[in-house]
Amino acid sequence: MAKVSFEKKLIIAVIGSGKCSAQEAVLAEAVGRELAKRGAVVVCGGMGGVMEAVCRGAAIESGLTIGILPGDSPADSNPYVQIPIVTGAGYARNVAVANSAQAVIAIGGDYGTLTEVGFALKSGIPVVGLNTWSLYRGGEQDKSIIIAEDAVDAVEKAITLAKGQKLD
Amino acid sequence: MAKVSFEKKLIIAVIGSGKCSAQEAVLAEAVGRELAKRGAVVVCGGMGGVMEAVCRGAAIESGLTIGILPGDSPADSNPYVQIPIVTGAGYARNVAVANSAQAVIAIGGDYGTLTEVGFALKSGIPVVGLNTWSLYRGGEQDKSIIIAEDAVDAVEKAITLAKGQKLD
Amino acid sequence: MAKVSFEKKLIIAVIGSGKCSAQEAVLAEAVGRELAKRGAVVVCGGMGGVMEAVCRGAAIESGLTIGILPGDSPADSNPYVQIPIVTGAGYARNVAVANSAQAVIAIGGDYGTLTEVGFALKSGIPVVGLNTWSLYRGGEQDKSIIIAEDAVDAVEKAITLAKGQKLD
Amino acid sequence: MAKVSFEKKLIIAVIGSGKCSAQEAVLAEAVGRELAKRGAVVVCGGMGGVMEAVCRGAAIESGLTIGILPGDSPADSNPYVQIPIVTGAGYARNVAVANSAQAVIAIGGDYGTLTEVGFALKSGIPVVGLNTWSLYRGGEQDKSIIIAEDAVDAVEKAITLAKGQKLD
Repeated sequence: MAKVSFEKKLIIAVIGSGKCSAQEAVLAEAVGRELAKRGAVVVCGGMGGVMEAVCRGAAIESGLTIGILPGDSPADSNPYVQIPIVTGAGYARNVAVANSAQAVIAIGGDYGTLTEVGFALKSGIPVVGLNTWSLYRGGEQDKSIIIAEDAVDAVEKAITLAKGQKLD
Repeated sequence: MAKVSFEKKLIIAVIGSGKCSAQEAVLAEAVGRELAKRGAVVVCGGMGGVMEAVCRGAAIESGLTIGILPGDSPADSNPYVQIPIVTGAGYARNVAVANSAQAVIAIGGDYGTLTEVGFALKSGIPVVGLNTWSLYRGGEQDKSIIIAEDAVDAVEKAITLAKGQKLD
Repeated sequence: MAKVSFEKKLIIAVIGSGKCSAQEAVLAEAVGRELAKRGAVVVCGGMGGVMEAVCRGAAIESGLTIGILPGDSPADSNPYVQIPIVTGAGYARNVAVANSAQAVIAIGGDYGTLTEVGFALKSGIPVVGLNTWSLYRGGEQDKSIIIAEDAVDAVEKAITLAKGQKLD
Repeated sequence: MAKVSFEKKLIIAVIGSGKCSAQEAVLAEAVGRELAKRGAVVVCGGMGGVMEAVCRGAAIESGLTIGILPGDSPADSNPYVQIPIVTGAGYARNVAVANSAQAVIAIGGDYGTLTEVGFALKSGIPVVGLNTWSLYRGGEQDKSIIIAEDAVDAVEKAITLAKGQKLD
């Protein structure tokens, strides 16, 4: 058998609303650029808003972008998705978005983002948050979501955690 | 064509962890009993913990119980599930648990429950909470989860909301 | 703990196209009537065509009908579905339709029906066919699909196989 | 906004059993090599058998391989998958395997493969077959599956059809 080897790719999911503020789009694009510069593959839900902005950022820096789509057609994806995964499974695809990454960056976010945060944390996949949900249970904060200051900090933290390293 | 008519069934989902405290089990069983007494069909994830307790409660009162299972076999369901829906879809089935109900009652809960809360709220399905998650965004509480005092209050609120009526 | 017991329900899935011929609709309605008369719960994909006809038949005889819907809303189901399971998962719900039954009856059918036949056979769930697909592999017929003569024969065979009994 | 452009990738799915004969593995590896030589991204179910062989073939020729996994962990994928999509959705992921490609090549195959053939044909995605299922309905063969002679012929036909061109 022919010998084959290749490096394991670093895969980071970026999650956020399909409709986002201009500020969130700027943040998401910066996250996408930084991820691509650092060699990470970007996984997202493939649609608009935060998903489109992060793909655009990654594409600017020639990064690879994967969109795990809810619908039935690759034509539904934003124009910066290079590999559309066409699940046809609606929001059930949120499970795949969260679980296909070694770390997740959540930007802002609506209830769909909340479900992806939940799926990632359930699987023990680190979640880094930029202006996203805070969770409380029994009166105490669940501190599983790592707070980031800005796009570069979020990417630095996500990559560190994705590699199984500790944060400073 | 033969004429057929039947009343629309009242369907309430009860969500919560597959491993729960004794206190949560007592609460879930009381919720199940009350739902069945009031004629509601109980939908849940079909597994143990809160799901088993709510089905047991409903079964005691001769209610109908439906378990939307993550696995490949009806044998995985708790013994009080009368109609096992065997999705084989893992946690992607959480979407179906949330969306198959006219209202959702969340009892305690882990990250899986959090995803079901998110799916319900995304679809505009009312969520009534008993000792469950609190959500904050941008420093402000998201008050979409209706807090209940006890099992009877939770069922009363869920049924009122399921019927599209306002709470007092 | 209170003692609870109930009989295991006999659950039969009926699969077929969402758009069907008048002849297939007659066949499906007859299958639904016969299933309900014999106490079986009918599971199907909840939409039109064969699915609607089988639910209508079952409803005429006061049987319980469950529709495992591809879409996001219970309003999408045909009017004879009593318990809509709202998966939002598109055709991924075909897995659940096939696997939630103890036996499957396929009537006519398009490619969606073919996928449900495949999922049932993969899980070892018996499939009874009325004017449905024939499968060949390596030049030989795969005889897993049991051919039925008419609606009553299909139901008789499906129930026999669902109970784990042999056909005569 | 920065201008970004990139070519649309050619994506071909290869489907077949997770346990396959040595002959099928040879065929699948040849298909994978040929696809990679011609610049196509290979999508598959990410597991063993045909899926592993096609990924190995593609990896030998430095092609990009994507495995849409049924399970919860990227560690379940065969070693030649570079981008694991972790659906956790069991066989519901078969929908995504079929629909994420512009054409599908089926090699041998069991009932799972049959479901993927069904999903592709339902979506109008061309299916090229190598020793795979033949389908009959109402006594007539459904000729939707395009028969290929060998690995190179299968790839040639799949790429031609993926580009929306007619076969000679």
